[in-house]
Amino acid sequence: MYVFGKNVVESLIQNGRKINKALVYNEFRDKDILNRLNCPIKYYDLNYLDKIVDGNHQGIIVDIDDYEYYDIDDIIKENGFIVMLDHIEDPHNFGAIIRTCEAAGVDGIIIPKDRSVEVNGTVMKTSVGTLDNMKIVSVTNLTQTIKYLKGKGYWITATDMEGTDYTKIDYKGSICIVIGSEGNGVSRLVLENSDFIASIKMCGKVNSLNASVAAGIVVFEALKQRNEI
Amino acid sequence: MYVFGKNVVESLIQNGRKINKALVYNEFRDKDILNRLNCPIKYYDLNYLDKIVDGNHQGIIVDIDDYEYYDIDDIIKENGFIVMLDHIEDPHNFGAIIRTCEAAGVDGIIIPKDRSVEVNGTVMKTSVGTLDNMKIVSVTNLTQTIKYLKGKGYWITATDMEGTDYTKIDYKGSICIVIGSEGNGVSRLVLENSDFIASIKMCGKVNSLNASVAAGIVVFEALKQRNEI
Repeated sequence: MYVFGKNVVESLIQNGRKINKALVYNEFRDKDILNRLNCPIKYYDLNYLDKIVDGNHQGIIVDIDDYEYYDIDDIIKENGFIVMLDHIEDPHNFGAIIRTCEAAGVDGIIIPKDRSVEVNGTVMKTSVGTLDNMKIVSVTNLTQTIKYLKGKGYWITATDMEGTDYTKIDYKGSICIVIGSEGNGVSRLVLENSDFIASIKMCGKVNSLNASVAAGIVVFEALKQRNEI
Repeated sequence: MYVFGKNVVESLIQNGRKINKALVYNEFRDKDILNRLNCPIKYYDLNYLDKIVDGNHQGIIVDIDDYEYYDIDDIIKENGFIVMLDHIEDPHNFGAIIRTCEAAGVDGIIIPKDRSVEVNGTVMKTSVGTLDNMKIVSVTNLTQTIKYLKGKGYWITATDMEGTDYTKIDYKGSICIVIGSEGNGVSRLVLENSDFIASIKMCGKVNSLNASVAAGIVVFEALKQRNEI
């Protein structure tokens, strides 16, 4: 997959990641990065690079192997902390949620295979280097996965408008927090299979939170409780 | 200024906002919106519209009067709640923060005049209709503004890596929470003039939060405390 932007490429180099090839703007000035690339480089004009990726590439695009998703058992552990995304579609939201989960010490993020954002260049860029420290699991069926997690002792908390104040829920032990999609929230079947429904009580007129902000609020409330003795 | 996207235009119509003119894709299908526009309309091909705005316009761009910023005294009140953005640059972050503040019942948002994002079409789109319920104040000097707010009885809490756990700070009374820029955080002078420094303690390796997520976490912790009796 193509990933782009100076910071992303810099972090790939520092982590010793294999870079297959690089597409670079023919007036790209940061020779230091180019010298450390250790892969075939071809030079193009800006017009050509703009067409390859959707986002600010800053004159450098590199091709790396596609993201290798983890298996569900790779992220299950004692006193575990998992976040599940129920069909998040915006790569910027996904990237911001990866950052949040990394900062909160979450063990892994579960996404569905269909109708969901995947790990791509935009996600990698907006996750600003945190993707390498976060395990992403892609599953066929969220409800089946929830049942599997319950069998492993996990408590499932979905977020929704109609539920318990999110600060009143007990996030200790092994937990999985489910964040709904930007447009539709958490799906009915997933809500029905959850142990708790957490609501962020609001007091405005429109009362609309960005999905990654809502995820941050609930995940850090959970972290706060889990750090209390 | 140009604003764009079906939801934005729909919300302008519903709020009875004056629309100066509309630039519409010549194969735009949603005739219902066009019928209710009540302004001159011209039709263009997609290529032309793509060049006018930076973002997904969905075939409709409208021109409205520039945003009229509020005065600082418009947002000062008893038991007030203000958010100040110290040179946030990304319009998506600004839009998400407006959503968060609206949902939390914040009285207004203060931004600096220079080197900061302004209210534009992208901000309007990412704030998904919440901008009309939020007062934005643009000031020349953040430090002077902080001193003015202190004179009005406000407690100033800046967010920074080195400070008190954000959950241990008292957010009751009249408060102003300062959120730093994406790259540099809160500036030194602002930190020096703040009453408290709030830190979000993290437990990952990279420990990086998106600015709008960090704002959401602190603003909702404040809201939680303010709602307690």
